[in-house]
Amino acid sequence: MNDQKKISTCFLPALFEKYTNPDSIVVVIDVLRATSVISTAFHYGIKEIIPVQSLEEAKNYQGKANHIVAAERNAMPVDGFDYGNSPFHYMNDKVKDKTLVLTTTNGTKALEIAKNHPTITASFVNFDAVVDYLISQNKAVILLCSGWKGFFNLEDSIFAGKLAEKLMNNGFQNSNDSTLAAIELFHSSEGDLLSFLSNSSHRKRLKNFNKEEDTKFCLSPTFFSNIVPILKDGKLIKA
Amino acid sequence: MNDQKKISTCFLPALFEKYTNPDSIVVVIDVLRATSVISTAFHYGIKEIIPVQSLEEAKNYQGKANHIVAAERNAMPVDGFDYGNSPFHYMNDKVKDKTLVLTTTNGTKALEIAKNHPTITASFVNFDAVVDYLISQNKAVILLCSGWKGFFNLEDSIFAGKLAEKLMNNGFQNSNDSTLAAIELFHSSEGDLLSFLSNSSHRKRLKNFNKEEDTKFCLSPTFFSNIVPILKDGKLIKA
Repeated sequence: MNDQKKISTCFLPALFEKYTNPDSIVVVIDVLRATSVISTAFHYGIKEIIPVQSLEEAKNYQGKANHIVAAERNAMPVDGFDYGNSPFHYMNDKVKDKTLVLTTTNGTKALEIAKNHPTITASFVNFDAVVDYLISQNKAVILLCSGWKGFFNLEDSIFAGKLAEKLMNNGFQNSNDSTLAAIELFHSSEGDLLSFLSNSSHRKRLKNFNKEEDTKFCLSPTFFSNIVPILKDGKLIKA
Repeated sequence: MNDQKKISTCFLPALFEKYTNPDSIVVVIDVLRATSVISTAFHYGIKEIIPVQSLEEAKNYQGKANHIVAAERNAMPVDGFDYGNSPFHYMNDKVKDKTLVLTTTNGTKALEIAKNHPTITASFVNFDAVVDYLISQNKAVILLCSGWKGFFNLEDSIFAGKLAEKLMNNGFQNSNDSTLAAIELFHSSEGDLLSFLSNSSHRKRLKNFNKEEDTKFCLSPTFFSNIVPILKDGKLIKA
């Protein structure tokens, strides 16, 4: 196998240690909703995004000029912060040229553990841009699903399967059973992803919080065909 | 949800800590091949099985009267041991009433981490017996896939999906996305499991070692309809 174009799929941050390889590009996936929000924010003009782990860290940025501070825990915005984790929060002119400081339940943790690798973020809404970028880089790829508080989730795994299949159609090769499983799950869901996820834990969670519109948006095909968020020195910028 | 009859699916021993709950029965799954071997050995008359972690521990039992010591690493029998990890090794009269000491790459590790819970082992070849047992116990169930050296594998996950679906048809309820994924994988594979696994890493590994017959046997429906291996004081016995 051409090691340069190997794909591995890691279903959870807790398993990442087994996959780590500094020559690989890590693709962080948290489609409901952190990585969808990140793509959306860049499309609407955010200059850079600082992912942080704790609410305390995030609070340190409050009041700083040209900063927006956003926090989500357990699928809800956190009291006292400017924004939450809904892509619709970012669809306005006020975000232009600002620095976004973001902490979420799962996605920002996955970014933290990937930070010693070349790292990008991916979601359905910037799928095409991610594919083009990875093909152009010609490197091994680790698809890192964020999961939910340490548990496997369907939506990130399905996205990994969609991305893996697309890359395999472009000369990449799979190296593990998790990628095969992800591709099967993608195929099973392909006709109607939203219905397929109707019993999934996070879709139910978001539905209970009246976030169905967020879910529908985040599961849509590419909106932002030139957005590839890339991690540089602890900040996400547009590649 | 009736917590008593909740199903959780844990794809890897490394994730078990998130699932642990002493009231649940853990079902250890390593269909290629440890848990298939365990069922087979009991069917052919083994009295008890002592799972051990290391080759050194296993060696301590060599030469003991009425003991058979078996070891497998990386899909191969280990030099100097009586038996390996092929079910066909155990299909003979010599195993009757003996104690089997067994160490394998993955399955015996999963047994070790589950040992503080009520624990049984399951495989396709004793599927019906496991279903009947779990229905009779009326408790929450954790389906623990052994994986391969810390990596997700398809065959254990598919088996978990088959078992979860059967239990859900008998009043059990699912509590997580990993179970939904496992059931989808089971459905995808249902028509021809052997072909479905043709690209899976462990089927390829066993094929390279001329173990195709082992694979075919281990993926067959119930042979042993009254074998439920249960862990008691560090030893597996027939329930």
